[in-house]
Amino acid sequence: MKKIFLTLLLLLFVPRLVLPQNTDSLVIQSIFSEALTNNAAYDQLQYLCENTAGRMTGTPQAAKAVEFTKQVLETMNLDTTYLQPVQVPHWVKGDTETASVQSAIVGFHDVTVCALGYSIGTGINGIRGNIIEVNELGLLEKLGKKNLQGKIVFLNRPMDRTKINPMAAYSGAADQRVHGAAEAAKYGAIGVVVRSLTTSQDDFPHTGVMRYQDGVTKIPAIAISTNDAERLHQWLTIDANLLFYMRTTCTLLPDATSYNVIGEIRGTEHPDEIIVVSGHLDAWFNTEGAHDDATGCVHALETLRLLKALHIQPKRTIRCVLFMDEEIWQTGGNEYARIVGEKHEQHLVAIESDRGGLLPLGFTMDAPDNIVEKFAQFKSYFENVHIDRFEKGHGGVDIGPLKELGIPLVGFLPSTQRYFDYHHSANDTFEQVNVRELQLGSAAIASLVYLIDRYGL
Amino acid sequence: MKKIFLTLLLLLFVPRLVLPQNTDSLVIQSIFSEALTNNAAYDQLQYLCENTAGRMTGTPQAAKAVEFTKQVLETMNLDTTYLQPVQVPHWVKGDTETASVQSAIVGFHDVTVCALGYSIGTGINGIRGNIIEVNELGLLEKLGKKNLQGKIVFLNRPMDRTKINPMAAYSGAADQRVHGAAEAAKYGAIGVVVRSLTTSQDDFPHTGVMRYQDGVTKIPAIAISTNDAERLHQWLTIDANLLFYMRTTCTLLPDATSYNVIGEIRGTEHPDEIIVVSGHLDAWFNTEGAHDDATGCVHALETLRLLKALHIQPKRTIRCVLFMDEEIWQTGGNEYARIVGEKHEQHLVAIESDRGGLLPLGFTMDAPDNIVEKFAQFKSYFENVHIDRFEKGHGGVDIGPLKELGIPLVGFLPSTQRYFDYHHSANDTFEQVNVRELQLGSAAIASLVYLIDRYGL
Repeated sequence: MKKIFLTLLLLLFVPRLVLPQNTDSLVIQSIFSEALTNNAAYDQLQYLCENTAGRMTGTPQAAKAVEFTKQVLETMNLDTTYLQPVQVPHWVKGDTETASVQSAIVGFHDVTVCALGYSIGTGINGIRGNIIEVNELGLLEKLGKKNLQGKIVFLNRPMDRTKINPMAAYSGAADQRVHGAAEAAKYGAIGVVVRSLTTSQDDFPHTGVMRYQDGVTKIPAIAISTNDAERLHQWLTIDANLLFYMRTTCTLLPDATSYNVIGEIRGTEHPDEIIVVSGHLDAWFNTEGAHDDATGCVHALETLRLLKALHIQPKRTIRCVLFMDEEIWQTGGNEYARIVGEKHEQHLVAIESDRGGLLPLGFTMDAPDNIVEKFAQFKSYFENVHIDRFEKGHGGVDIGPLKELGIPLVGFLPSTQRYFDYHHSANDTFEQVNVRELQLGSAAIASLVYLIDRYGL
Repeated sequence: MKKIFLTLLLLLFVPRLVLPQNTDSLVIQSIFSEALTNNAAYDQLQYLCENTAGRMTGTPQAAKAVEFTKQVLETMNLDTTYLQPVQVPHWVKGDTETASVQSAIVGFHDVTVCALGYSIGTGINGIRGNIIEVNELGLLEKLGKKNLQGKIVFLNRPMDRTKINPMAAYSGAADQRVHGAAEAAKYGAIGVVVRSLTTSQDDFPHTGVMRYQDGVTKIPAIAISTNDAERLHQWLTIDANLLFYMRTTCTLLPDATSYNVIGEIRGTEHPDEIIVVSGHLDAWFNTEGAHDDATGCVHALETLRLLKALHIQPKRTIRCVLFMDEEIWQTGGNEYARIVGEKHEQHLVAIESDRGGLLPLGFTMDAPDNIVEKFAQFKSYFENVHIDRFEKGHGGVDIGPLKELGIPLVGFLPSTQRYFDYHHSANDTFEQVNVRELQLGSAAIASLVYLIDRYGL
């Protein structure tokens, strides 16, 4: 702490116009030092993971996460803290998720499963049928009704591990989870089993949202672990006629009211220019949601805490937004954007952290090239901390609707090599977050906010 | 595999001089793809962790690690595989490591400890004394005999968490572990308790080597966890006269014979020019030694496997060296260098991986500037995989003695933000290694070896 006070004392007496780069570097150094020696964000993360696991939209856990993060903001002595009401979907996965392989040849084997998000249930008796293994959705049409009617489709294309960027490997396989059920139903399939979207070979089923199509029969969909997917594939080579049984009790309840949680430090010179820093509060039913996205929420909370702790008074308004419902319908992000439009609020930039709390590498920006170029100039401030990717790319799902309003979007970019080991599974726990990596991420985001506040975009 | 064959087929028909950069990029892409889809190195890591934990020099576990890695090399169809005998120290930590705090005011508390490497034992009855807490070795002289005689010195300066580079924080605190006992003994202290060298706040004691000084009484030294160090500090503020009891049964046995494990692919054009790729086999008594340094060993083994699997026939000789005894006296590294000198073997470069198997960031080179500059030009080949630190810096402890022979040294540089959570403690387990991060590291090293073989240094 002594060092920080010393730095700040120094700042007061250094004429800003003489040494701006140097002053900024000192401020950024202070931000990193404060972040690396304070466990507030890590403790908040632990609370969210241990006390609000499974915080899906409409659940008591989600309400608890809203309440907790609002309280955290209220302790920060901000200028404004409030809840923004959102009508959210209330899908529940129900009590029962079971599945088994039944074969006179390979035997009877329980398979650990999880329902896909937004799927219907199987009905109380479950469904049973032969399995057709398919690796490309495009093959479903070729197989047609004569092969698929009454069958359960097993979508088993792995994520491509040779892709250096796991996000690209995810995008390349996610069609099976998102559209598999709707496509298979067109040809009379009665259910879908999807290989979990992970580069890891393990026993965790990974869920995630799926979508039905209007006018197409809704059939239930589940995920199985990559190990079980390999086993099922083997069993099918031995007994192509094995029976697969699955039972889920998912239900879609009426929409519920939930909230985006918002807190802000009002700018001293341009209070009407807003810089958003954000993450999302909701997480899947089967997980603590540590990296998806409790880390993003505490990154955003910690950004405000760092500015306050270091007595950095921003010129613009810095607003922390913790969105509700990233995972199903993005109602939180849409409602936020609707209100921004309605109020004609001016947003300089919206930053989101939703790719995990792992080692920070940089930021990606979804904006016109001239703005990306200006943003990329901030890279020089991060050389000492080896955060050097400032490039065009994805912003964030929750802030996505702001793009139509012409607002530049920035996505925090950590290493994602480990991310899909955890993503949407019971393996996404507090223990999987490294405190220093989390702290470096918060410091990186807070430093970027400081620079954008100071120099604009 | 299809893609790799296609790439290699392509290589055969592409005139090398027309498209060298492009050809090299294709080869490097093949190396990464093969590494990311093959679990050989990960399986070897698992074996070393689960079957040779505590493989200190002179132990049966070390012998088993030698035997296993030699067998791995023998399955690779190399040109040469052999064991290089080394006389190694044989220090054993013994059966008993106990310590406790004894106070009428704060009570009786067991403290989890581990002996420091190479320390003497306390004798069968242990030692008991008052504690003097000191944060700088320099203060010992000021305190002098009148304050330290008959006392146990508690060295409690934490690693500086504000340092972005944890290696620098480690260097800044390691004097306490290495020299604390010798310095405290000069003023009559009877034992030393050292705060574990880790940025983490946890319950693992971390060991590591310590050194005595000629002519100074040898006193026993132990490490306690950072949590226990905080507790002990608190207890001392309540009862400055508390008694600390410690008992260790370390013994230094006669030197033993062990081995460096060596395998090589002979170069087609310049077989006498050798490129070394290396790690070290030995690990502390209290750990699986996953990141220190089983990952370095499998990085080196995997480099040879990748070249073989992709039918890359090097011009120079590629030699994998798995050193024995990095942790105590570097007898393996010294013996290897002695023989290199004796035989006048020409080494183009020696590469070592001994900073863990975490996310690869680049390489550091210990060599004259003109060579570092040439080496840094290889950076462009790694842009697609975001491995971009090619800079002057540390080579490696085992390859260190080769520097005197004028051989350029290269150290593999992964992220070390997590490294000291594991280092020299029971927390350094197989589970702490991420398979993709390990694979990316192997691919990075193999790609660098390929480039140095092709273009020299």
